[in-house]
Amino acid sequence: MIDLRSDTVTRPGPQMRAAMAAAEVGDDVYGEDPTVRALEERVAALFGKEAAIFTPTGSMANVLAVRSVVGAGEEVLCDSSAHIARAELGAHAAYTGLTMRTWTGPRGGIDLPAIEALFAPDLGPFFVPTRAISVENTHNFGGGTVLPLGDLQALRSYADSVGAAVHMDGARIWNAHVATGTPLAEYGAVTDVLAVCLSKGLGAPVGSLMVGTRAAVDEARVWRKRMGGGMRQVGILAAAGIYALDHHVERLADDHANARLLAEACDVDPGTVDTNIVVVDVSDAAAVVAAARDAGVLVGAVGARTVRVVTHLDVSRDQAVAAASVLTKVLASTRPTTGGS
Amino acid sequence: MIDLRSDTVTRPGPQMRAAMAAAEVGDDVYGEDPTVRALEERVAALFGKEAAIFTPTGSMANVLAVRSVVGAGEEVLCDSSAHIARAELGAHAAYTGLTMRTWTGPRGGIDLPAIEALFAPDLGPFFVPTRAISVENTHNFGGGTVLPLGDLQALRSYADSVGAAVHMDGARIWNAHVATGTPLAEYGAVTDVLAVCLSKGLGAPVGSLMVGTRAAVDEARVWRKRMGGGMRQVGILAAAGIYALDHHVERLADDHANARLLAEACDVDPGTVDTNIVVVDVSDAAAVVAAARDAGVLVGAVGARTVRVVTHLDVSRDQAVAAASVLTKVLASTRPTTGGS
Amino acid sequence: MIDLRSDTVTRPGPQMRAAMAAAEVGDDVYGEDPTVRALEERVAALFGKEAAIFTPTGSMANVLAVRSVVGAGEEVLCDSSAHIARAELGAHAAYTGLTMRTWTGPRGGIDLPAIEALFAPDLGPFFVPTRAISVENTHNFGGGTVLPLGDLQALRSYADSVGAAVHMDGARIWNAHVATGTPLAEYGAVTDVLAVCLSKGLGAPVGSLMVGTRAAVDEARVWRKRMGGGMRQVGILAAAGIYALDHHVERLADDHANARLLAEACDVDPGTVDTNIVVVDVSDAAAVVAAARDAGVLVGAVGARTVRVVTHLDVSRDQAVAAASVLTKVLASTRPTTGGS
Amino acid sequence: MIDLRSDTVTRPGPQMRAAMAAAEVGDDVYGEDPTVRALEERVAALFGKEAAIFTPTGSMANVLAVRSVVGAGEEVLCDSSAHIARAELGAHAAYTGLTMRTWTGPRGGIDLPAIEALFAPDLGPFFVPTRAISVENTHNFGGGTVLPLGDLQALRSYADSVGAAVHMDGARIWNAHVATGTPLAEYGAVTDVLAVCLSKGLGAPVGSLMVGTRAAVDEARVWRKRMGGGMRQVGILAAAGIYALDHHVERLADDHANARLLAEACDVDPGTVDTNIVVVDVSDAAAVVAAARDAGVLVGAVGARTVRVVTHLDVSRDQAVAAASVLTKVLASTRPTTGGS
Repeated sequence: MIDLRSDTVTRPGPQMRAAMAAAEVGDDVYGEDPTVRALEERVAALFGKEAAIFTPTGSMANVLAVRSVVGAGEEVLCDSSAHIARAELGAHAAYTGLTMRTWTGPRGGIDLPAIEALFAPDLGPFFVPTRAISVENTHNFGGGTVLPLGDLQALRSYADSVGAAVHMDGARIWNAHVATGTPLAEYGAVTDVLAVCLSKGLGAPVGSLMVGTRAAVDEARVWRKRMGGGMRQVGILAAAGIYALDHHVERLADDHANARLLAEACDVDPGTVDTNIVVVDVSDAAAVVAAARDAGVLVGAVGARTVRVVTHLDVSRDQAVAAASVLTKVLASTRPTTGGS
Repeated sequence: MIDLRSDTVTRPGPQMRAAMAAAEVGDDVYGEDPTVRALEERVAALFGKEAAIFTPTGSMANVLAVRSVVGAGEEVLCDSSAHIARAELGAHAAYTGLTMRTWTGPRGGIDLPAIEALFAPDLGPFFVPTRAISVENTHNFGGGTVLPLGDLQALRSYADSVGAAVHMDGARIWNAHVATGTPLAEYGAVTDVLAVCLSKGLGAPVGSLMVGTRAAVDEARVWRKRMGGGMRQVGILAAAGIYALDHHVERLADDHANARLLAEACDVDPGTVDTNIVVVDVSDAAAVVAAARDAGVLVGAVGARTVRVVTHLDVSRDQAVAAASVLTKVLASTRPTTGGS
Repeated sequence: MIDLRSDTVTRPGPQMRAAMAAAEVGDDVYGEDPTVRALEERVAALFGKEAAIFTPTGSMANVLAVRSVVGAGEEVLCDSSAHIARAELGAHAAYTGLTMRTWTGPRGGIDLPAIEALFAPDLGPFFVPTRAISVENTHNFGGGTVLPLGDLQALRSYADSVGAAVHMDGARIWNAHVATGTPLAEYGAVTDVLAVCLSKGLGAPVGSLMVGTRAAVDEARVWRKRMGGGMRQVGILAAAGIYALDHHVERLADDHANARLLAEACDVDPGTVDTNIVVVDVSDAAAVVAAARDAGVLVGAVGARTVRVVTHLDVSRDQAVAAASVLTKVLASTRPTTGGS
Repeated sequence: MIDLRSDTVTRPGPQMRAAMAAAEVGDDVYGEDPTVRALEERVAALFGKEAAIFTPTGSMANVLAVRSVVGAGEEVLCDSSAHIARAELGAHAAYTGLTMRTWTGPRGGIDLPAIEALFAPDLGPFFVPTRAISVENTHNFGGGTVLPLGDLQALRSYADSVGAAVHMDGARIWNAHVATGTPLAEYGAVTDVLAVCLSKGLGAPVGSLMVGTRAAVDEARVWRKRMGGGMRQVGILAAAGIYALDHHVERLADDHANARLLAEACDVDPGTVDTNIVVVDVSDAAAVVAAARDAGVLVGAVGARTVRVVTHLDVSRDQAVAAASVLTKVLASTRPTTGGS
């Protein structure tokens, strides 16, 4: 089986496992795990931020990140297909109590005029004030969309002018970094707080981080514990993250090349494939998923007529070529005949 | 002073006060207040619904109404300037834990293609499912906009096709009813649950109702008590509501006529004045508010460059004429000179 | 029917109704209702506090009061039969997110050694810190128990020594005041924040107040609106409260005398009847309630074997005498025969 | 340093690390991790339950377990020093919205008469109904107290009679099992739902499980994801748990023996040392902690005058003997001299 459902399915290889097995650990609830501390400091430095905190999932990293800038009764603006709005099971409202309003950008991108129209100043205790604007880079449901640095800088400038924070869901920020060559610190410079993930493209088994100011991270440490995310000898997992940062960042370019190959095979406009995600419009997503599975390729339905194909560490060039061939045939066979009797 | 800030400022007159003073009452927490029961039954019947429940505010009616169809971790779609999103201090997320995503309709109206694009089916425990679509009629921040019955029927049809509920924030549904002649029961027919208000255009001092199925109202009675809204001899207030329904509905046409007069005086497109709210774009809202106040007219700033003018029971035709004259002068004097050096 | 179920069932008389009908009002959401403002200032002054805020119910007053001193993830200690723990549908946890731990005092009273044993200092972000100690005076489920001023002063002293706030649920503080002659300001002096009610013994139809510091009340005004308690021309209700303070406080002594009479008739130890509530242990509460109802007297079952009898404004001395006679007979007839055949 | 602060500080040894490195894994969010599935099935079987679910922490396992039987606005009864009440940062109220009331048992034990007095039946929508009774076995802040099986069976019987669920915080249930020989399935038989921990006495680096019915576990899977606990290739951690179950259960007897040794050295009544926790009353906990640290032994202050000493996998018999000697001296030197001038 060639598994193209998601880049979350990667399994740690022998060297990453060896790194985990050798990790020096301590009780991180007491702040005594040297490996997680090293990972946190390294990731904070990559983004030019003061501090970072490890979490068991990207969802928790996002919840902690957003709540560091938006409280109950306040609001965050985001794209209508943002992961924080569409997925994460509504945790931001359910646990933080914050309100969302949404714009609908091109492929999940930034629509600054729409954001300006949405922005709500703090008009006193009748209205919900906008405290933050959230963007997702790369944008998952948008199709792995890279947010242009220029758009981000314009957003930063606008946010500063109105006193709003900028949050970035950077679960796949590494893909944006590799696809564009933009230094990670540039992403740090345009945001107040980020969530970044180790277990998607980077291939670590578990783990994400929230990255921001020292004060925000210190407060997040308390809320992480309250949410049940205060793990003990977590250096085991952090070691995989460090290994991934050492070995799995630059190779994301291979995933991107494989995605372009698959896009071509699926007759998808290559201009919509910025990174490792290919979104294919089909007439019957369930039928395509089933037919591909029968042919040895796993893809995902993310809508009634939308199939998502994702490349990652555990898909080699040869596998991508083979899957491309399979998908071309599957799409041809499941395409409805038009016209005629 | 002529107070055009909001239709919430109306004060009960002698006859309404007499009705309150004469109200038969009982302990409504025990379900023993005959006057509130009569009001609840009457309002339910007006909308063709099974039941209704009295609340101290429109905000609480909306919170109870929306939570009857959307739970924590689920979502409601609404216009981005909806009262439930922009106002109510974020109670729907803070207390119910629900997620919102928003479209931006013309003057707060229904944009069905946008709604269809936003709608999220229940894809299993990863995603936030759309449980309801909320509309506001008339639409406050949209400028007292009446939602066309055809739009509502199309929405109802779409919602049925995807298994979603329809909530209507009908705080000013009476204005829509009077402006269009649409029977209230038609509004009931296109919605699952409504919130309607007695203390805006109708002029009662306090009170709103949630209107829906018997089961939803029964459950709302528990949540109303949990929110601190389970009042005792509330027939005093319900009597004012009954009086208002008897005497203050049809006269809303006068408020609408006054609003058109004021719109003309403020050089506002009459096509944007469906009911009793006039939204005036100005260069400096605070300056206009201050100058009008100095001239004896109270209006409200609802944005940096937006002034809102609202007619109501306590503004006579003569007062409207006088205020129109004042506002014409104020707008002329506060309008920036263009051109020149 | 003589209704002894609760002192919440009182109905406003002609003079209170006249006061309501004549009330000067304004939009209290804008802070413009002179009558509610007068009531708030008067009640604040009675307790020697800076400010007070009107709420639709005692539950909302308690939620606002406790949340002013205890946040999410923090705790309040209270007696295990406290109204804030047993009743109010769990709003303090559900809406504020606070934790409770409880002692079990004699008839709901203060057990300082137990409180000292429970108190949790702020040991850092692993533990739930105690922020407040809550007492109820008079204590409803304890049987109208008056908390001795000495106990309250000792509690205040202890709370000061550990940096905790003291909250008083003073829904029936007026009864304690009249029963003991303790000035209301003395109760204010031993507490940081109180909730007091106008619609129980005082006989107003609707309304309670939270009483505390200016800062706490200002913040409560925001949370009251978020909970849906920000009513408009609420002076109508406040006028009833002012009337009640003028005319219905001292007469609570009559209710207390009536309660002693009823206690005697029910063979209840008069030492357990401090104010207007009589708790009667019976073998079958439902049977007693039913038999009394058949004989024209309404009483309440507050447990499988516990009946509660409450005197109030709408029960005259003659009615109390008549009810006493009825209850003596009912208790005799429903008492299980012991021994014998 | 000999670290006796907590049994959470244990570090995985070479064999446990090898087991982790060799673990077969998959994406557990998709239910495809064979190792975590094996662990979940094994733990469920040990307790005679239908299902179990892995969580990153014991706090999350407890939150999921309690919320499976108690909802917002409902209550759980527990001992006043229960971990769910005192620790976990108030998550049960903050995230689930549930109410707690507490009894104070001997060393954290069950006080059935107190529980019966606290129990609140479902009296309708005015009161908070008791839905569950929670016990902790062994009881952490009680001093590693084992709850006698007879007490648990009596509680089970009472809970059944009133329709309440029984929750057990079994973070250290393994210690109770080894100390008494009671089969784990007996603990399962007296409870509806348990939380058990792998990273305390058992020495795994990370992980706990909620154990209960299939339906409760299925629902908990959704809430775990909402809380941010849905990890990916978590078989790495589950493998450590399986290793711990294979190798680290029976050896807990050594920890218990070491604890008795230390108790003797600290002049603590051995009757209060059921398992691996020794609670020492001192005159100045901070001073004892500091002096012990200077002498190479880490212990914890859990109160102003209370020191906690905990034995575990990483403390050998020799180390226990050495620590005992240190603590005897430290306690002697920090004991205040009584009498004299």
